[in-house]
Amino acid sequence: MPVLSYDTLRSHLSRVLLALGCPADEADVIADALASANVAGHDSHGLIRIEQYARMVQSGEIEPGTPTTIVRETPATALLDGGWNFGQVVAKRAIEMGIEKARACGVSTISVKNSNHLGRLGEYTVMAARAGMMCVATVNNHGRGNLVAPFGGSDGRLATNPISFACPGPERPVLVDITTSVVAEGKVRVLRNAGKSAPEGWLIDNQGHPSTDPADLYTDPRGAILPFGGAVAHKGFALSIMVDIMSGALSGAGCSYSGTCRLGNAMYFNLTDIEKFVPRDEFLEWVTTLKNHVQASPPAPGFSEILMPGEPEFRTEERRRRDGIEVDEGTWGQFLECARSLGVELSG
Amino acid sequence: MPVLSYDTLRSHLSRVLLALGCPADEADVIADALASANVAGHDSHGLIRIEQYARMVQSGEIEPGTPTTIVRETPATALLDGGWNFGQVVAKRAIEMGIEKARACGVSTISVKNSNHLGRLGEYTVMAARAGMMCVATVNNHGRGNLVAPFGGSDGRLATNPISFACPGPERPVLVDITTSVVAEGKVRVLRNAGKSAPEGWLIDNQGHPSTDPADLYTDPRGAILPFGGAVAHKGFALSIMVDIMSGALSGAGCSYSGTCRLGNAMYFNLTDIEKFVPRDEFLEWVTTLKNHVQASPPAPGFSEILMPGEPEFRTEERRRRDGIEVDEGTWGQFLECARSLGVELSG
Repeated sequence: MPVLSYDTLRSHLSRVLLALGCPADEADVIADALASANVAGHDSHGLIRIEQYARMVQSGEIEPGTPTTIVRETPATALLDGGWNFGQVVAKRAIEMGIEKARACGVSTISVKNSNHLGRLGEYTVMAARAGMMCVATVNNHGRGNLVAPFGGSDGRLATNPISFACPGPERPVLVDITTSVVAEGKVRVLRNAGKSAPEGWLIDNQGHPSTDPADLYTDPRGAILPFGGAVAHKGFALSIMVDIMSGALSGAGCSYSGTCRLGNAMYFNLTDIEKFVPRDEFLEWVTTLKNHVQASPPAPGFSEILMPGEPEFRTEERRRRDGIEVDEGTWGQFLECARSLGVELSG
Repeated sequence: MPVLSYDTLRSHLSRVLLALGCPADEADVIADALASANVAGHDSHGLIRIEQYARMVQSGEIEPGTPTTIVRETPATALLDGGWNFGQVVAKRAIEMGIEKARACGVSTISVKNSNHLGRLGEYTVMAARAGMMCVATVNNHGRGNLVAPFGGSDGRLATNPISFACPGPERPVLVDITTSVVAEGKVRVLRNAGKSAPEGWLIDNQGHPSTDPADLYTDPRGAILPFGGAVAHKGFALSIMVDIMSGALSGAGCSYSGTCRLGNAMYFNLTDIEKFVPRDEFLEWVTTLKNHVQASPPAPGFSEILMPGEPEFRTEERRRRDGIEVDEGTWGQFLECARSLGVELSG
């Protein structure tokens, strides 16, 4: 199994993105984001996406190099049009603008339409946290991700509609980065391909009955993934609706529906300049106190410690930056093939 | 069982609050909020609270009539000091200021410290929604609600840390109003008093083992309520940490911890003026489309329809405004006794 350093992975990605027609600075931004997803352990949002992105560029769905334009703006807010460029480029532009506006006004909200897939949402909230901000972000899927059932429903009507939050923390940022569904579709696919069962509470079949058979998600008509919450899944459903509205209705890009639309991520970013409220040290002291307080809970049976939100990702990142990133043979082969087809020769 | 009209209940509450030393305008604000909680079906946040509030006024914990002061302010943000007045008075002031600032700047954030219990959080996000705003709100408990276990932990370290969202909807606002724990403590208490079991997935005993015995929450040391999420309860835990930081660290009021502190609600309100992004009609059209889309899902076995977040509350409100509010004998007797002790004679 190939093991790549962060820098090698990033450089490979950048070369392929250049070959796809991305301007050099944008290729670097996208390569950064994808390599960062891999290094944080979110392999589903890293290198593996290149082959899909290449197809989308070739079909005209992604329009590399198109500038992000400002549709409406006030000192504290903006509605941006991503011009169907790579979502990573658009999201970075949105966060940079959000930081600038929050520094000036104390708080800012940036809403984005006409953007492709932005990858891992936590990438952008952490970017804001490292600039001293508290940040809440959501994305929806415009109605092209009808995989998650509404609470009480029997078919997929919503996307996995994630929400992310980050803020400065004692050693590293606190990072919340969760889907409002029990799981992402990719995890169900992995189980199906491996011939394994899904845990109880993940899925329903296309009649709305609880199921542990991953194949039930891929029947015609399809089954669905449940909103998260277990016995109180109306809460996960409620959050999914919130995410869909904050992302899709505020930007005008559109919420989940059953018509046909262009696949993409409508985005919502809200940033708070902490120092407009309390001194940074006071904020950090409370976050540290909270962390120490919850981590002092004696671990329940089956657990060895309590992890703060984001700690699993940051630990994986430390390990992979030190030891390298393992890439499975299938993904690696697909990536090399994609690179070759674009005239890029890579060596591990 | 006494059945009261909304207006009668509101008037009774207002008279008792006046007798407790609230200025007339503030007594009306608090009475409105409590009666609105009852009418929406949240009886745990209505009339039943008066006896506790009376004790808190008498002990000096609640300081009726104290003005809310501005600690720091920018055109889009404010940090408020509630002066330990009733939380309902402080929260209404915060929302009014948030609406004004969001109208001017497109977005606003109001952070609040030194406030007592605000009651039902959804009361305030709906207030903002009725003014054309999208609103996200959170409150914590300063460390005086250590009832909810961190994910992987075995004792209570967090409060129920609720989050609420509201925005304009086609007929009525969309309202998300959820705790980040599986349930509120009151529901466990009701089961214990009735000698009933708790559903699986609600509780752990004081060794961290899953429990269905409500009494396990009241042992010494206590068991704990789980964060919501079932198989993925790390998500509910992550949201609880987010709520604690947004409410307690940004305001400087404090996050959950194990020291002694004054019981209260630190508050976070973020408001967005929708029209600074898209025309109100376009926003409403997408919310309506989303509502119709999810409600068209064929109900799963055991369900007869799909309800949007907030619909159960709004339906109860319609019914109770028409038919009156049933108050159980115990709560009613306690309320009459409390009124009488303050020299207020009430008739049903």
